[in-house]
Amino acid sequence: MRIGIIGAGALGLYYGAMLQRGGQDVHYLMRRDLEAVRRSGLRVTSPRGDFHLSQPAIYGDAARMGAVDLVVVGLKTYANNILPHLIAPLLGPQTAILTLQNGLGNEELLAESFGAERVLGGVAFLCSNRGEPGTVHHLGEGRIRLGEFAGGFSDRARTISNCFREAGVPCETVDDLRRARWEKLVWNIPFNGLCALTGYDVTELLSHRATREQIEGLMREVVEGANAQGLRESIDGPSLIERMLEMSDAMDHYRPSMMVDRLEGRSLEIKAIYDIPVEYARRAGVEMERVGMLSALLALGEQP
Amino acid sequence: MRIGIIGAGALGLYYGAMLQRGGQDVHYLMRRDLEAVRRSGLRVTSPRGDFHLSQPAIYGDAARMGAVDLVVVGLKTYANNILPHLIAPLLGPQTAILTLQNGLGNEELLAESFGAERVLGGVAFLCSNRGEPGTVHHLGEGRIRLGEFAGGFSDRARTISNCFREAGVPCETVDDLRRARWEKLVWNIPFNGLCALTGYDVTELLSHRATREQIEGLMREVVEGANAQGLRESIDGPSLIERMLEMSDAMDHYRPSMMVDRLEGRSLEIKAIYDIPVEYARRAGVEMERVGMLSALLALGEQP
Repeated sequence: MRIGIIGAGALGLYYGAMLQRGGQDVHYLMRRDLEAVRRSGLRVTSPRGDFHLSQPAIYGDAARMGAVDLVVVGLKTYANNILPHLIAPLLGPQTAILTLQNGLGNEELLAESFGAERVLGGVAFLCSNRGEPGTVHHLGEGRIRLGEFAGGFSDRARTISNCFREAGVPCETVDDLRRARWEKLVWNIPFNGLCALTGYDVTELLSHRATREQIEGLMREVVEGANAQGLRESIDGPSLIERMLEMSDAMDHYRPSMMVDRLEGRSLEIKAIYDIPVEYARRAGVEMERVGMLSALLALGEQP
Repeated sequence: MRIGIIGAGALGLYYGAMLQRGGQDVHYLMRRDLEAVRRSGLRVTSPRGDFHLSQPAIYGDAARMGAVDLVVVGLKTYANNILPHLIAPLLGPQTAILTLQNGLGNEELLAESFGAERVLGGVAFLCSNRGEPGTVHHLGEGRIRLGEFAGGFSDRARTISNCFREAGVPCETVDDLRRARWEKLVWNIPFNGLCALTGYDVTELLSHRATREQIEGLMREVVEGANAQGLRESIDGPSLIERMLEMSDAMDHYRPSMMVDRLEGRSLEIKAIYDIPVEYARRAGVEMERVGMLSALLALGEQP
């Protein structure tokens, strides 16, 4: 499959490199890493084994990449304003677009720009970061849950899922992508935001009774917001929250990506992870008040 | 009137000095400022005119002060565990106790220790801070609203109020002290906490749409919590909130005391201003969720 990677950050580079190593014909749109990769290829370090791609197909300009079968989007959502412009040159009549971006609203943007029938989304559980230009560090995980924006299962989704699996990336298809996205938000909304805001890691936040209660309260709000969306199957809040707390209690001073981004002075994906979910919940009659407050506090720390 | 001042911080020293200058027989329990005041008296700087009391009656030990007619409490609420111990030696058969401390729960503590019939409370609108030992800076305001813990008007409350007024301190009596306390919380809860937490001043918080909305949301929660307490007369939320926002918009980069305390590494009065109000609201069936979250975030920054 001819695959175009848009947004060659840690996520895009990791999945692109894995797919390429798994035998796919992968093309990368790059900015920061372009010269370094042209010089010395693309290097992935990973507990599952490091590897190196000596001459990946890289581009500084999407128009030169030309049409692909599948666009994989890993762009940070705060750059979504340029996304349609980057993708347009890659589209042939049958090209599918899979966004692995965080939060909500990304499929909607793509559907608006290019038609809902092209769009799939995936929730990535990946722990990775960028090293020096041309290097991406895979720290752990990598699992993807993907599905059609329109809902339901499809041959196309299964084919893409197989590509990932053949490349060594655990991947499953889901019939309700929105549910998968909201489930991930049940973890991301409290932990990404509270860690970024306070500078305390997951373990520290859970060890204080008052913040632990807030985490649970935020999770309950997100579940309520989710279940107001008319999901195919409601989320069982108490059970999901219990599992997530158990998993989080087992983390050893984990720093969510948003916390690292704030500490290193980068922009946060507040709109996709907070504002759009708050808005979707509100439209469905649920006011996620604590989430809104967390969002407002996070926004205050952003550069104008 | 023989008056004992307990808690000789900026508030206690200011009101004590004003009452003394107004002709009352004022006695101060001091710790930090004791030696300095013994050496060079007590100095008040104020836009309404500086003044100096050369030999105020000061004590390092409450037992030496002996019985007074009125105890005025200005102690920071986080030191409330030692308050009964400090007050006990000052009580004669008729001694009244007026707490001007912040937040809720202070009258209850005094009533439990010394009997409800002794207790009055007041809400102080005072902008002051401590200078070098022996000096207090009055920056503005100073108005007090005071009333009986048991509710209703009383000759005693009127007499105390007159002492303040004769000393140049605007003072009015209220028949529902709890209402006065909650009304002040409608301002204090959002602004003290958000400014302390974020490091942004009142003007900055109001200038961002998202935090302005949070301020309004917090105010609405506090009004709801207040009106569930069975006040003699309900608070008209929309009108009070509008007036408070208008007043706050007119402030020029004001830094609430809690923000200054946090910046200077001092303890915050989280229990009196947040946790007890949240608890009182909960008992009355109102969950002040945003207030609870703000409280949890503030507590995280406190020294254990």
